[in-house]
Amino acid sequence: MKIGGNHYRTIWPDATGARVSIIDQTRLPHSFEVVNLTSVEDAARAILTMQVRGAPLIGVTAAYGVALAMRADPSDAALSRAIRFLGQQRPTAVNLRWALEEMRRHLLPVRPQDRVDAADAHAGRLADDDVAMCKKIGEHGLELIRQIGGRKKPGEPVNVLTHCNAGWLACVDWGTATSPIYHAHDSGIALHVWVDETRPRNQGAALTAFELGSHGVPHTLIVDNAGGHLMQRGDVDLVIVGTDRVTANGDVANKIGTYLKALAAQDTGVPFYVALPQSTIDWSLQDGFDIPIEQRSGDEVLKLSGRAAGGDIAVIDIAPPGSAAANPAFDVTPARLVTGLITDRGICAASREGLSKLYPERDAAA
Amino acid sequence: MKIGGNHYRTIWPDATGARVSIIDQTRLPHSFEVVNLTSVEDAARAILTMQVRGAPLIGVTAAYGVALAMRADPSDAALSRAIRFLGQQRPTAVNLRWALEEMRRHLLPVRPQDRVDAADAHAGRLADDDVAMCKKIGEHGLELIRQIGGRKKPGEPVNVLTHCNAGWLACVDWGTATSPIYHAHDSGIALHVWVDETRPRNQGAALTAFELGSHGVPHTLIVDNAGGHLMQRGDVDLVIVGTDRVTANGDVANKIGTYLKALAAQDTGVPFYVALPQSTIDWSLQDGFDIPIEQRSGDEVLKLSGRAAGGDIAVIDIAPPGSAAANPAFDVTPARLVTGLITDRGICAASREGLSKLYPERDAAA
Repeated sequence: MKIGGNHYRTIWPDATGARVSIIDQTRLPHSFEVVNLTSVEDAARAILTMQVRGAPLIGVTAAYGVALAMRADPSDAALSRAIRFLGQQRPTAVNLRWALEEMRRHLLPVRPQDRVDAADAHAGRLADDDVAMCKKIGEHGLELIRQIGGRKKPGEPVNVLTHCNAGWLACVDWGTATSPIYHAHDSGIALHVWVDETRPRNQGAALTAFELGSHGVPHTLIVDNAGGHLMQRGDVDLVIVGTDRVTANGDVANKIGTYLKALAAQDTGVPFYVALPQSTIDWSLQDGFDIPIEQRSGDEVLKLSGRAAGGDIAVIDIAPPGSAAANPAFDVTPARLVTGLITDRGICAASREGLSKLYPERDAAA
Repeated sequence: MKIGGNHYRTIWPDATGARVSIIDQTRLPHSFEVVNLTSVEDAARAILTMQVRGAPLIGVTAAYGVALAMRADPSDAALSRAIRFLGQQRPTAVNLRWALEEMRRHLLPVRPQDRVDAADAHAGRLADDDVAMCKKIGEHGLELIRQIGGRKKPGEPVNVLTHCNAGWLACVDWGTATSPIYHAHDSGIALHVWVDETRPRNQGAALTAFELGSHGVPHTLIVDNAGGHLMQRGDVDLVIVGTDRVTANGDVANKIGTYLKALAAQDTGVPFYVALPQSTIDWSLQDGFDIPIEQRSGDEVLKLSGRAAGGDIAVIDIAPPGSAAANPAFDVTPARLVTGLITDRGICAASREGLSKLYPERDAAA
């Protein structure tokens, strides 16, 4: 999507493939900085420190990480080592494991001397596939927004609420939850987005507000506490969120706080949709509550970073010195609270039956 | 309660009554500063800028504000002017209006030359009454915690979740939602408190964590997004929150985000209680959705203050420059989501019938 009028992807290799560039998302929205990755260690660090985040982008970054590893050593042992190492960086991210398995499956039959080119090409293909998949999610979601827009009074925008950042910054382009929004906006549908700030890491305030603003989509930032009230007052027409993992029964693991918004949507009759690429579906799990939940550092709760008066980035403490904090990164929204799943193949019920109709070959293989 | 081993109230007059001291709660938890009020304008500013906050403390501060106004001019006109002026500072706070009407009712029959002494005495009585009322709330809530504690395995603490600060810092002493917690802790019941940080003003991180820590109560700070997940996992035994206003039907207006926690509590079978002094009941309203909701400045969402590395208080921007933000201060939790109301006269159902049984004379007068 656009930043300063120029089109960007979130990750792109140079002509040789020896250098892969990313946008350092830990610096947004305060400064726009491009970081160059030249080794598997660089790629792993980018994933661990969340310079790249979002299930699809993590997967593509890992794929490029394997490609960079092949440049240093194209052996079978190095390939396994790189895949294991990259896989350890974010334990909850099923998409990370999926992308790494894709690379293994593709590269193992290739002779070591051909693996650099094969890895570059396959990582590029995964990136292009992600863009195409996000585009399709957006096309299906666009129809949903168009229907809701058709029921609004003339001139009234469709109010969409979103949590965290399942935007193009979380993918390669378009995003998942934001793809319907960008498609609707680009189609001329009047639209306004409520952006949850998404504590503790504030991906909504830092990333979603940044990318919607950069692309020209009207939006308003709110604290995570406010969405229920807005739904009670009729100020939300639709919730669309992304997901880190959907289990075969339609349960949704997503950024902490998603469950609370789903409860409010159900209580107030607001449709609650989850947008996802098919790689996010974990056919091996039958119940969202079997998903291990990553516990991150309490410092993310106790400290906040932002732009100080002079323009520098400052970190402040918000709690009394020595406070203890707990920081579960995700929660699970039970399928019963989900109106539908917006996928690249269409919209389906959040259930095994719904998913299986769209992805019969995946279900059969599971 | 205790700070540094010394017992404090949140507001106290000097021996002459000409100077009323408060703790500047906008400076907590980073520094403990006492501010002296010597005029009605000082008292109004303390209310408006939230140096004092919490329904009961706002009421008592307004009462002392009237007393300070009487020192400057004890006339009927000055009394009316002071009451109107103080009442305008926080439109949602029913307790503010209640305390001001108490002062008017008590002072109008008194001769102007006797009004300074009468006002000092009556403001002092309102403060003492609040302490006594909070103590009773705590005694009733203690029984509830004791019952829940009786069902826990030996050595397992009772886990209480609270939102915002309905602590002694919001009252004169004990607090409302925290009074059962302090009573249980002081009685030797093993207890642990999950403290919602409570964006946007972070009263949980700044005040509740500070006062629980100062008094020695085990607690853990969490983001507002985390409570639902903790309830799903069985890590919360009981939610207790305060309220700014309860309508006659038992609907509860409280800090934004309370509604989301009540939904999660209902969905997971966790008891959800609201602690309140009787002055918070608005018998004139039959429906919580008739309560006007204060819209505060978007800057509270966009900017955060905290302790910078050097120890100074710094304000940082968390969103892209020029972002729009909406900031509703309260939400309404429908009575159907409330397990019970913990009052000074006992615990009752969140309904007109429940409230009326405990306060028949108030209902009859309504």
